[in-house]
Amino acid sequence: MNQKGKITMAHGSGGRATNELIKEIFADEFSNPVLDAMEDAAVVSGSKNIAFTTDSFVVDPLEFPGGDIGRLSVCGTVNDLLMRGATPKYLTCGFVLQEGLELSVLRRIVHSFAETAREAGVAVVAGDTKVVEGTGGLIINTAGVGFLPEDVSISAANCRPGDAIIVSGDLGDHHAAILSHRMNINNSIVSDCAPLCEMVQSLISEGIRVHCLRDVTRGGLGTVLKELAESSGVTMAVEEGLLPVNAQVRDFCGLMGLDPLYMGNEGKLVAFVAEEDAKRACEIISNCAYGKQAAVIGSVTDEMPGSAYVKTSIGGKRVLDVLFGEGLPRIC
Amino acid sequence: MNQKGKITMAHGSGGRATNELIKEIFADEFSNPVLDAMEDAAVVSGSKNIAFTTDSFVVDPLEFPGGDIGRLSVCGTVNDLLMRGATPKYLTCGFVLQEGLELSVLRRIVHSFAETAREAGVAVVAGDTKVVEGTGGLIINTAGVGFLPEDVSISAANCRPGDAIIVSGDLGDHHAAILSHRMNINNSIVSDCAPLCEMVQSLISEGIRVHCLRDVTRGGLGTVLKELAESSGVTMAVEEGLLPVNAQVRDFCGLMGLDPLYMGNEGKLVAFVAEEDAKRACEIISNCAYGKQAAVIGSVTDEMPGSAYVKTSIGGKRVLDVLFGEGLPRIC
Repeated sequence: MNQKGKITMAHGSGGRATNELIKEIFADEFSNPVLDAMEDAAVVSGSKNIAFTTDSFVVDPLEFPGGDIGRLSVCGTVNDLLMRGATPKYLTCGFVLQEGLELSVLRRIVHSFAETAREAGVAVVAGDTKVVEGTGGLIINTAGVGFLPEDVSISAANCRPGDAIIVSGDLGDHHAAILSHRMNINNSIVSDCAPLCEMVQSLISEGIRVHCLRDVTRGGLGTVLKELAESSGVTMAVEEGLLPVNAQVRDFCGLMGLDPLYMGNEGKLVAFVAEEDAKRACEIISNCAYGKQAAVIGSVTDEMPGSAYVKTSIGGKRVLDVLFGEGLPRIC
Repeated sequence: MNQKGKITMAHGSGGRATNELIKEIFADEFSNPVLDAMEDAAVVSGSKNIAFTTDSFVVDPLEFPGGDIGRLSVCGTVNDLLMRGATPKYLTCGFVLQEGLELSVLRRIVHSFAETAREAGVAVVAGDTKVVEGTGGLIINTAGVGFLPEDVSISAANCRPGDAIIVSGDLGDHHAAILSHRMNINNSIVSDCAPLCEMVQSLISEGIRVHCLRDVTRGGLGTVLKELAESSGVTMAVEEGLLPVNAQVRDFCGLMGLDPLYMGNEGKLVAFVAEEDAKRACEIISNCAYGKQAAVIGSVTDEMPGSAYVKTSIGGKRVLDVLFGEGLPRIC
């Protein structure tokens, strides 16, 4: 086997080959004074309240229409911090490389990771690489720290009856893009994979009374609504006719028998805001780069605490449960 | 294939099967008010200066004499924080499960992870699980946040000529334990995998002038000494006769043609302290549970900046470089 231009087990030694890999592929892309010092842990300035989270990414394929595992790994963690109202500040990354991974692919993914981190305003301050046997795959874990203003209290337990429910745009794009690509179906559906800093920070700085935020990922909006109904002890009532779905994705779903309510996104959020702020919040989101299709889709009620339902276009009520079964494997 | 008692792709859906897995295996073990809230990110109290780091763990086998991947995953990240003089506070964990992993094995590993976190005084505040195809393996990523007193400045760049070089105990134990186990060699060598909180915190609270700390992992002490010589622009001079190596590990190395200077540990550190504090520092470490075999092994000089060497027992000088080649794959 020709190992030139590919990851080998030696790259996992912790010795010279590891150092060269880090120098050649990671160092320039992620360069900042803290990381460049190559210490065991990064020492950075903190704040009185911090938000801290992690996510692992196993998406297959590594590169897909609209993004790649590098961009996804930044967005997933940055978005989780934003969902508490925190300003994302620092990221760590753990790259688990499979033997045989093309260095050219790794280089592109690391570049995309670094570009997305710059877009999101976060510094990569620590990292780790490991090598395992395999067939050229890659798993990335990211952890993130953000700073939290003392007067912000956004939580899964804070949805209140009367709140408007807003989604920031079309449902199901990431899921449909990954699935189309895997099935070799030719269409122009692209992943919505994006960092949501602009819209969350705008909502907060404009004084919108945001009670809860959640990014819509694995499990889809249906799962999110049911989980938040339970966490807040309220009812989520949304209208089928108001759910934003891109026309091409809608056709794709019809063909495949998929339900956009249970498909994953990677650049969409659902916001629960005070009723009087709903219109303005929706406008603020619509003015952001990744929020053009934002829509109010329903409201929080106290009819049946812990439950969620969708009013169908023919006037029925369909109760939403969390996703049951497999969903799409390795979507994020 | 009988899937009962094993991880399946459905456990990665983000829906009901994922929730049940988290509830049954992780929730009780890691329980604390922050984690129990099941938010997208944990909100915790911070401090003016924080240390932040990450590490991924791919050790094979998952359970080995003296530890398992769960204990290792806590120790690796906690120890990295300690090496900056920080007090470890919070951990996140990302579990990447391979289809077919026995739930009973996962349960033991999660329990061991939780026990070690308690031992190290850190709270698990956020986590993530993913499922990939495979043959029952497991990869864990941990990230950690620690608090740093303002007057502590421990860094890879701070070794100074005159400093004493102390190792906290026997070299090569983890490496020898993993290799023996893989080769089905019967001996009583066990991994030294341990959190080093007690010794680092004792050194600092006793006022020892600690200039630099580094845990001895992949690549071994030889690699560490060379890297720190470069970071600090000094020379590391150690004596072969002073290196602590357990008799059984020494025999094993002789048999296998291995060099303890390039073998990984998972519960040892090398400390660079002011010469006058050397004896007391060594005593403090020796009084800790994981530091019984601590020894002064040499000193920092300014002979050849950026280089490290070992004085052999027959009076020669052997220059130390970073590990070249593969080392032992999947040791941590």
